[in-house]
Amino acid sequence: MGDTMKFDKSRALFERAAKVIPGGIYGSKAPGFLVPGAYPYYLDRAAGCRMWDADGTEFIDYLCGYGSMIVGYGNEAVDKAAVARIRQGDLLDQPSPLMVELAERLVGKIAGTAWSVFVKNGTDATTLALSLSRVRTGKPLAILASEAYHGAANWCSANVFPELESERRDIRRFKYNDIEGLEALFRENKGRIACLFLTPYHHPTFAPQEEPDPRLYETARRLCDSEGALLVMDDIRANFRLHEAGSHVRFGARPDLWCMGKALANGYPISVLMGTEELRAVASSFFITGTYWMSAGPMAAALASLDEMERLGGVARLEVLGAAFKEGIEAAGRKVGFGARVTGPAGIPFITFDEDPDLWLNQRFGSAMARRGVFIHPHHNGFISLAHGEDDIALTVERAEAAFAAMAAGRE
Amino acid sequence: MGDTMKFDKSRALFERAAKVIPGGIYGSKAPGFLVPGAYPYYLDRAAGCRMWDADGTEFIDYLCGYGSMIVGYGNEAVDKAAVARIRQGDLLDQPSPLMVELAERLVGKIAGTAWSVFVKNGTDATTLALSLSRVRTGKPLAILASEAYHGAANWCSANVFPELESERRDIRRFKYNDIEGLEALFRENKGRIACLFLTPYHHPTFAPQEEPDPRLYETARRLCDSEGALLVMDDIRANFRLHEAGSHVRFGARPDLWCMGKALANGYPISVLMGTEELRAVASSFFITGTYWMSAGPMAAALASLDEMERLGGVARLEVLGAAFKEGIEAAGRKVGFGARVTGPAGIPFITFDEDPDLWLNQRFGSAMARRGVFIHPHHNGFISLAHGEDDIALTVERAEAAFAAMAAGRE
Repeated sequence: MGDTMKFDKSRALFERAAKVIPGGIYGSKAPGFLVPGAYPYYLDRAAGCRMWDADGTEFIDYLCGYGSMIVGYGNEAVDKAAVARIRQGDLLDQPSPLMVELAERLVGKIAGTAWSVFVKNGTDATTLALSLSRVRTGKPLAILASEAYHGAANWCSANVFPELESERRDIRRFKYNDIEGLEALFRENKGRIACLFLTPYHHPTFAPQEEPDPRLYETARRLCDSEGALLVMDDIRANFRLHEAGSHVRFGARPDLWCMGKALANGYPISVLMGTEELRAVASSFFITGTYWMSAGPMAAALASLDEMERLGGVARLEVLGAAFKEGIEAAGRKVGFGARVTGPAGIPFITFDEDPDLWLNQRFGSAMARRGVFIHPHHNGFISLAHGEDDIALTVERAEAAFAAMAAGRE
Repeated sequence: MGDTMKFDKSRALFERAAKVIPGGIYGSKAPGFLVPGAYPYYLDRAAGCRMWDADGTEFIDYLCGYGSMIVGYGNEAVDKAAVARIRQGDLLDQPSPLMVELAERLVGKIAGTAWSVFVKNGTDATTLALSLSRVRTGKPLAILASEAYHGAANWCSANVFPELESERRDIRRFKYNDIEGLEALFRENKGRIACLFLTPYHHPTFAPQEEPDPRLYETARRLCDSEGALLVMDDIRANFRLHEAGSHVRFGARPDLWCMGKALANGYPISVLMGTEELRAVASSFFITGTYWMSAGPMAAALASLDEMERLGGVARLEVLGAAFKEGIEAAGRKVGFGARVTGPAGIPFITFDEDPDLWLNQRFGSAMARRGVFIHPHHNGFISLAHGEDDIALTVERAEAAFAAMAAGRE
């Protein structure tokens, strides 16, 4: 293509990085986790739903900091509140009054919860949920869905080195939505199960997203109750994009523990474990601590971001934008013969191709869109934010039509 | 006392908190971890080396956000750099160019290191060091000093519930500075040791601090080399208060892995695992990821804070201030018969009383100082910052004299 993007500065930075950082960039932001050479390696600034890379190229963003951005990059209300609080006092020797305010706000908002424990990483919340489940029940096993992402700790991460096997020994997996398989796991491990982790719906990497089977949550609740196990809702990735009162409400689930993060504070670092009244005692018995966990800045950001979500239309607005995205992308694909399918809730779309289970078309389409200034991850679900507008979606669909046309013509 | 401090707002906030947060405040900031009723529960703002609590009372601070604050609360250069960067783009889909700049800066600064991996919590760094050690050596055991703090994960935390025992099963402890005990542990576990964790010097909670035995580091290096184990320097609490090139340089230690955090970014949330060239490959083989780990704001803060440390006089300046603190507090105690002793490096002082191994005098002294507007933790080491001045130390010593006098007279 004549319009190949320039990544000169990204590449030069990466060459420097490779000398002082293992792999140059590690984890989910490594070039190999996108399409090497087709996406920028470094991003320099952002505003609203747009980002600019190190070479100055503009992108409409559909990854949103892996879901953390929900009311817009550089949202003035959020940044103003957070920055004022940071300058007044962020990490101090004791918490700020904001911790009380945020806990009250969340307990009042998230249906079924009685308390909040603020942590930093999402993994801090899921790992704490696992520990509290084990301590509360006196039992070791945790059941997770295969391919479900619950964080970067060894008990749940992609690091399957044999030397770390002991940390995964008490984890069992079932195929998402396989109700009979789940029942069988509970039967086979009767008396040994501490908890069942579920994401509100299934959002694996590398595969279409799946809504929960209508029987999943009633089965999960019944199995947990009869086992005396806890149901943990890992709502970190989806929170505030499915339902204002917590994603579980959308599906009628009744969890014991909730993990939230990401969109909670529009990118400022904070996560939270929430629980029912019954679990307050066990949470109180645990020594829960982290140097940065009670910093006031991210709490101010969270409070302001919750306000902004409401002001900007919340989940209802994301549904409208997401529907336009889905309709536009799928139609653009069909027009030239691609079976592009957008799965998942409207605010968390993932594009796959019916004719391509290996995601090769995803790589081609993602690259073609990146070349046209749209950042769509090739094998991870995307996110829509309240800073996206109908005009951004329309422009995206227009570029998708051009991308599909180039792909159909074999040019890209 | 007539001048009893008012904690009305702290108490009212705590009553609200107790309804929505387990224990009201958890972990090391729980009221019970200080002296309940004698210290404020909530802090509202800070500037330089001063903090103001929720009731508006001012304190000279000697805890510094558990060591994170080193160039002053609200340091203008640090906040300006961080805030500008946050507004420009903090958490994006890919790292910012600042990640490369900070990695280069740290590798150039910390003696013996070849690479940096940025994480969020200090515990993320120590836990990653443990995992990499196990994967690299193919062996399970980690050796730690008794009472040494390495973070809040179950393998090293105060949560000794039997349900979590499997996570501590491969941990062995030796008495700090017991060279023969350490040698015996290596002998008894020959062929099974992945790593030895050491803090640069011993800073237990509830006990005087200890400098390393002159033979400790050469013994540690020799034992690790002959076992093929890795030496991990947990420099999170002490970093940049002992030596500009890393605390290990002060003691002639030669680690394989380094954990740093806290003072790295003056309170902004970031930690880092660093390592030698030999360990680059194993670090590259690990999937290391966290949503907030590559955010640009804390990296801008770290770069600016490193500059500020130099500009404000660095470790040499902390040594001067710390010496004045030690001399003043010890003399104030002796004057009325208390065996107050300040242990540890000058920038990280801990006051204990020779006649009181149970720390009851610490509680009385800490409370008496809090009443006089000085925040000294009753059973955790303190920190001096580059925002403290000779006048602050002199005022602190003056207040210590009054506190000791009141204690000697049995009034407090």
